[in-house]
Parts: sequence; structure tokens; C-alpha cells
Amino acid sequence: MFEQNKKIGVFDSGVGGLSVLKQFLKYLPFEKYIYLGDTARVPYGNRSPETIKRYAKECTDFLVSKDVKLIVVACHTVSSVALDVVEQNSNVPVVGMIKPATKSALLLSKNKKIGVIGTRATINSNAYQDALIKSSEKGDVEVFARDCPLFVPLVEEGFINHPATKLIAREYLSDFPNFNIDTLILGCTHYPLLSKVISEILPDVELIDSGEQAAIYALRLLAEKNLLVGEKDVISQKPDVEFYLTDYTSNFSDIAQTFLGFKTENVSFVSLSN
Amino acid sequence: MFEQNKKIGVFDSGVGGLSVLKQFLKYLPFEKYIYLGDTARVPYGNRSPETIKRYAKECTDFLVSKDVKLIVVACHTVSSVALDVVEQNSNVPVVGMIKPATKSALLLSKNKKIGVIGTRATINSNAYQDALIKSSEKGDVEVFARDCPLFVPLVEEGFINHPATKLIAREYLSDFPNFNIDTLILGCTHYPLLSKVISEILPDVELIDSGEQAAIYALRLLAEKNLLVGEKDVISQKPDVEFYLTDYTSNFSDIAQTFLGFKTENVSFVSLSN
Repeated sequence: MFEQNKKIGVFDSGVGGLSVLKQFLKYLPFEKYIYLGDTARVPYGNRSPETIKRYAKECTDFLVSKDVKLIVVACHTVSSVALDVVEQNSNVPVVGMIKPATKSALLLSKNKKIGVIGTRATINSNAYQDALIKSSEKGDVEVFARDCPLFVPLVEEGFINHPATKLIAREYLSDFPNFNIDTLILGCTHYPLLSKVISEILPDVELIDSGEQAAIYALRLLAEKNLLVGEKDVISQKPDVEFYLTDYTSNFSDIAQTFLGFKTENVSFVSLSN
Repeated sequence: MFEQNKKIGVFDSGVGGLSVLKQFLKYLPFEKYIYLGDTARVPYGNRSPETIKRYAKECTDFLVSKDVKLIVVACHTVSSVALDVVEQNSNVPVVGMIKPATKSALLLSKNKKIGVIGTRATINSNAYQDALIKSSEKGDVEVFARDCPLFVPLVEEGFINHPATKLIAREYLSDFPNFNIDTLILGCTHYPLLSKVISEILPDVELIDSGEQAAIYALRLLAEKNLLVGEKDVISQKPDVEFYLTDYTSNFSDIAQTFLGFKTENVSFVSLSN
């Protein structure tokens, strides 16, 4: 098979990566995709680095076995603590969530005061914080990071515009105005769904959707490596995605609708370990 | 070793079972315990029955290998959908969460209108509902069940008396007053920590702590089978518990303090699969 015609593999700890897939379908609509969600072991966000690395290797092995041309690590937790594991276990380009988002934040921020929110594992890893400082020309960026562990369950339960969510968001984000940030990286797949709530609390702050930045980055990367599939003349409304999950969850279809905007078909179940 | 001197094995999907262990330490303070928390794969509550059964078997095998005299299934989700798996894979008595709580509810309820709250898997399994109807002498009990998926993350994040928790609880419990229940089973290890919040919303309803009922049930069962350890004359403030976790989580010690009321020592890590 021509390399260009191979699929793009996207993996995540669960369903959150569908928000990243949505951005890829927007910027790279003619590609074919495989989406792997490790729904039997979600969430990764509060687990130890060792466990996250083990799970990341198993997800990578699965996508490698599917002969994909690019691996997208949609999970910010894996992107933060185990991107090297994915790179070491695959022979195709790997796109994580950290680098594209930090570059974009540095391009956009005027005062070089940048906020990052994410799961406990993502924030504790310092991956975003380190990448921002490393990519800043003069190293003069100030980073303010905060974990927001309840955002994931709130989004998954559909409490997106709920007063309780606004109360919790107000508490999580209460320190950011003191730091005078002008840019905030949404360092978790679920957080773009809370953009409206976050913008109400931080109205003058530019929000960075890491999934969107990763899609734009992947577009440039594939073009550079001559791996882009050809433009199509006939437009299908139905994206070409195979879904693989490690566990059946009764509300997957509803969550997919929330994250992707369409009902998922073509869902298979797969076991990654024993 | 005399059978009486063997330990009691308690397992849970994570840390929630510590609220059950706390009740066992109260009613059976002279026993020795092994606590297994599958923190690498918590939570079980939204997973499929097949996956829950597989995880339950692995937890059972571990406790059987430790030669315990009794297995306590502290996880309500496992108690609901996989108690038979635990029984089939062990040769010691097994105490789940469902039967003791339903018997107690039927004893206490005057109007035979009983509520049950739990995780999605517990409620969808109908285990509590079926057990209540089966154990009711005339089958004339009315059961009102509701899943409350956000209670677990809220408790684990320490949002126990938070206004957001009260808002969410008010929403989850809003139908119960219409049903005129006089008794409510707290069908999840985390929910006893929200007793105060729940009682504010349902002031005239008797709350059943399943962990407490399970401990009382186990006391009778061990006595009947002549498996109780002897009463001690010298009282130690320090309970005899070995803790095993499948993953290190940075906030385990804090959560243990919340659930148990003391700091955990004697924590080991164990792998249940591959």
C-alpha cells in the first residue's frame, strides 16, 4: 500500500480523544482514521507514571499492528509522561498534545504569562510547563498551572452548563486573574467542551485547544513528509473512522455524540492485556 | 494455622472500600485484615459486566493466594454483578454488600418504600432492587433506584461539604420525596461520607450504610462458623491491616485518612494482570 493511503491512528485513555479526532476530521478531512479508546482502564489522569507508560505501550503496539502512517497521542496524560514510550515503540511519526499547544501559546501570548490546566498527572509531570520554557526564545515566559480533576467526570456526565460545574470552575480558576495570564492551554481532551464556562470566568484570556493545534501540526508534518492523502472531489458527510474500545460502556454512543457531533458506527472491541 | 487466626480479606476497585474496612474494624476489632484496592483500574462503576467479572476473578485469586478465612467484597459494583464469580473462585465464606443492606432496610422500613442509590453499573444491574423484592416476606416492597455517578469523584476530591456537591445531590435526589421513601440504601462505598449532605435533603429518611451492615453480618457469620478470633485483653489503637494496591496514587494517603480516619502504613504494590 502507498504510504499516503495508510490510516492515521489516534489513541486515548477513553472517549475524550474524540474531541481531538473531531479537530483532525476538520483539518484533515480526507484521511482515514483508526481510533482506539482504552475504556476498560480509563481514566489515566490519576495513575502513576509507571502504569501510564505500560498502558501507553500496549496502545502503541495495537496501532503499530494496524500499520498506521501516523500516531496521534490524544491523551494529554500519556503525552505528558509517556510520549517517549510511544516513539520508542513505533517507526512512524508521533504527534502528542504538548508541543503544538505550547508553540501556539507562545505565538499568541503578548505578555508571556501563560496558564495551563489539566489532570493531576499532566500537571504534576510539568510537561507543559517545561515545554513552554524550553520553546520560549528568551526563556522569559511565566507559567501558572493548576489541576482540575473534576472537569472530566462533569463533562462525561453531561454537566457542561450546570451551575455546579460553574461553581467548581470558578474555584479551580480563581487564582488565574491574580497572575494576569493572557493565554490558557486547555491541557485535557475534555476541557474544550467547557470553553464557554471557562471564558465566562476568564473573559479576556485566549484559550488554546490542544487538539486543534495538534491537527494543524499534523497537517504540516504529513505534508512535509509527503504523507498526505490526495484531495477528494466528491465530498462524503460520513468520516472514515474505525473505532476500537477495550470495554463496552453503555453511554459511549451518547458521549461520542457530545464530543464528535455524530453517532459512532463501526465500533469493535479489543483486549490489550491478558 | 488455626482457621480462626487467619486474616479477613477485603477487596475493592480502589480506595472506597476503606469505608467498609472502617466498619469492620469497629465491629470486628480483634481480627487481622488484608485490604486489596485495584487502584490501577478503578473505577469499576461504569464498566461492562464482562470486564467487572474478569477484574473480580483476579482480585479473588489474589486473596485466595493469601489464605484468608473470609472474603469481603467491599465494592458494590462487584457485589452487584460478579458475586457469583467470587464465590465460585474461592473456598471460604464470601460477604458482599447487597444482602446485609437489603435485609436491614426491610427490617427498618415501616412503609416498605425503599430507595437505593449507587453507581451506574450497580443500579443498572438491578441487584439491590431484585434482592429487596426477593427478601420481602409478602413481596410488597416498592423500590426507587437512582444512579449518582458524580458522587464518587466529588468525595475523592474532598468536595464533601462543597456547595457544588449539595447542588448535584439535590438534583440526583430530587425525585425521592415524591416517592415517600422512609429508608435509603447507600449503595456505594463512597456515599456514607455524604450522609450529612443527603440527610439535609432527605431529613426524614433512614440511611443504610451497607458497609456497616456487612460488618454486622460478617460478625454473625464468623461466630456461627466458629471462625472468630479470640477477644483480646490488651487493646492496641493500631489496627492490623496489610494494604495492597495495584497502582501508586499520589493522594492515596490523604484519601485513606478521609475514609479510615488514620494514616495507612504497610502498603505494598501488586500486579494482578500481565
